[in-house]
Amino acid sequence: MPETARSPLAPARFPKLPPVAGVRLAAGRAGVRYRGRDDVLFAAFARGTAAAGVFTRSTMPGAPVLWCREILPRGRARGLVVSAGNANVFTGRAGEAEVRAEARAAGRLLGAPARDVFVAATGVIGEVPPAGRVAAILPGLHDRLDAGAWRRAAGAIMTTDTFPKGASRTCRIAGRTVTINGIAKGSGMIAPDMATLLAFLFTDARIPAEVLQSLLVRANESSFNALTVDGDTSTSDSVLLFATGRARHDAPRDARDPRLAGFRAALLEVMQDLARQVVRDGEGASRFVTVTVTGARSRRAARAIARSIANSPLVKTAIAGGDANWGRIVMAVGKAGEEADRDRLGIAIGGVPVAEGGRVRPDYDEARLAPHMEGSEIDIAVDVGVGRGRATVWTCDLTHGYIDINADYRS
Amino acid sequence: MPETARSPLAPARFPKLPPVAGVRLAAGRAGVRYRGRDDVLFAAFARGTAAAGVFTRSTMPGAPVLWCREILPRGRARGLVVSAGNANVFTGRAGEAEVRAEARAAGRLLGAPARDVFVAATGVIGEVPPAGRVAAILPGLHDRLDAGAWRRAAGAIMTTDTFPKGASRTCRIAGRTVTINGIAKGSGMIAPDMATLLAFLFTDARIPAEVLQSLLVRANESSFNALTVDGDTSTSDSVLLFATGRARHDAPRDARDPRLAGFRAALLEVMQDLARQVVRDGEGASRFVTVTVTGARSRRAARAIARSIANSPLVKTAIAGGDANWGRIVMAVGKAGEEADRDRLGIAIGGVPVAEGGRVRPDYDEARLAPHMEGSEIDIAVDVGVGRGRATVWTCDLTHGYIDINADYRS
Repeated sequence: MPETARSPLAPARFPKLPPVAGVRLAAGRAGVRYRGRDDVLFAAFARGTAAAGVFTRSTMPGAPVLWCREILPRGRARGLVVSAGNANVFTGRAGEAEVRAEARAAGRLLGAPARDVFVAATGVIGEVPPAGRVAAILPGLHDRLDAGAWRRAAGAIMTTDTFPKGASRTCRIAGRTVTINGIAKGSGMIAPDMATLLAFLFTDARIPAEVLQSLLVRANESSFNALTVDGDTSTSDSVLLFATGRARHDAPRDARDPRLAGFRAALLEVMQDLARQVVRDGEGASRFVTVTVTGARSRRAARAIARSIANSPLVKTAIAGGDANWGRIVMAVGKAGEEADRDRLGIAIGGVPVAEGGRVRPDYDEARLAPHMEGSEIDIAVDVGVGRGRATVWTCDLTHGYIDINADYRS
Repeated sequence: MPETARSPLAPARFPKLPPVAGVRLAAGRAGVRYRGRDDVLFAAFARGTAAAGVFTRSTMPGAPVLWCREILPRGRARGLVVSAGNANVFTGRAGEAEVRAEARAAGRLLGAPARDVFVAATGVIGEVPPAGRVAAILPGLHDRLDAGAWRRAAGAIMTTDTFPKGASRTCRIAGRTVTINGIAKGSGMIAPDMATLLAFLFTDARIPAEVLQSLLVRANESSFNALTVDGDTSTSDSVLLFATGRARHDAPRDARDPRLAGFRAALLEVMQDLARQVVRDGEGASRFVTVTVTGARSRRAARAIARSIANSPLVKTAIAGGDANWGRIVMAVGKAGEEADRDRLGIAIGGVPVAEGGRVRPDYDEARLAPHMEGSEIDIAVDVGVGRGRATVWTCDLTHGYIDINADYRS
């Protein structure tokens, strides 16, 4: 694996994450694959903690994903074990046994059944993880569980990430202040070997599991489901949300409860903040790209067109080269297969109208776009002229760095 | 545009293409965009020539594609004009006028209506082509139309291609020998700026237009529709087949006529030969990759899974790095969204079984694959264990060369 420098798009520092009542964390070194760094996160939750989760749509999910899907319907959690270096995917029964062993070991320490412990893993796929290595360090981690170990927790789950990712917001529910903390990893959407997307969200809000699930699914649509680095989908992508209930406000009945308005907004902000950080750490990324599509037949169609633009290797290499190549954007709209009116198509880059009415604007001047294209934040806006659907997708450019990381890491 | 060296996967030489009775060709320099090289191909066909065509599925097709679609239902052709350097896409009414002007000019020289002249173009998109520049050189080309100018014709239609592409086969129909010649361009599947897929096929067979169309559509499925370089789809992809009828055998009634068995096979061979050449000239390609998927629910499902593998940037960068990364193949099968049985999934690379029954084989030895991975022809075979559908897709690896060509060419 080549030495990878911190992404040029990384934020200046890890943000301050306050404690979340009912959540304690510890990170440590099991040596699953990496040496000389933390590679296991152990989190413990207060009794009564509700859980929600969304997972990869891959038809080849890893053993940890299968385990989480199996226990999620209970809607409760007492612990979380995350390991980095081996994704435990395509590992047959041995892989399933390893997940269960980790959950049992954590459950014993927490006085809870194994099925109250969520497990996630990221790293190389297809290799059976070394048996028992994660479980062996859980007792030591249990002894030093702490309410303030957020930065270390975010570091322990990294693979090809070049910086740890965290975010926090507070809001009010029924008169009480609640906190939402999140950590994430994934420097790609997603390199399955080393860059699966994992995100964990923790709140002291008191929200029943089925309401929590509905809030998570909705916020996920406009955050982690709105990012793409290379169009590849991991076998292990997981987003889990744990709510300890320690804020002791009245519990809402359903996701549309008006008392949840602030929470919904804060949850979306935390998840969007983390999602943007994941893109900023996209493998080889040198520019952060926001693609907004309007005027589509539906939100689904708008998202499909935005993804087609954001995933196009030709659009992404043009951006890497500082080239305002709107011709490639037209190509990507065309290949999306969704309805679009060529003669009404409008394209703006960096807020500057470039094309409209089926051709380039007569006053188009590439020099006007040059300052925007040389910056590190590129905005592409496309109106396809047939309806009112709109969607935003975030991505990064495609550079030599991506090839370096993905072609060379095992050699 | 950087100087691009001849692809390391290029064939040793341009093949010998014999004359096709009823077809004459000439190439020359209009200076549409390139200087100091041929950039226009003019072909003239005998009276009674039948035409068939398949085109891009892009919802943003170029003006030449719209013209060809408009005239194709007539099923006849007297001429073909192809220009390189400007694709005439997203160019509004000015672009449509240019296509009609080219067809009219060629038609006048051939004593035929404009609507008997097919037009194709490849190159930069979104810029209105310089008016009349192609038409201006057609009289000169008409004066030197020739039955033997195949190599020069193949060269005139190139953009980022690093070698001209041609193929030829003969076969027999109802006792007469007929010839099929083809030329193609496109060093990607497809860079819309400079690497649209264009292929032109010429035969002296006597086949009615509707039968010809059905033969072309069928052969196209297993040739040009089975290749991918970067998953991007051009606004200009066109495959045209012209049959002059000069072989004077009895005309077949339909595409299933047993007398067409040899022709069907020969047409497929010419088209597959050209399709493989296009992949061998994939932008930045250093390895030719054949992905075969078996055991899928249907041929369509098999093709979707094969394409998912062949388009995955992670699979393609791993191959560039000589890495037999079957974990990424599992990922790509999973993201295809087609039914696959994880516990029956089998993967072989270079004929060596790597994974079966939902995990890596116990005797898997990466060293055994090393010689194959260091070669220039990589074979990936995947059985997904649920049915009898199978499909083959050709692609190339994803290297620094792709980024060089596509990020830097306008700077």
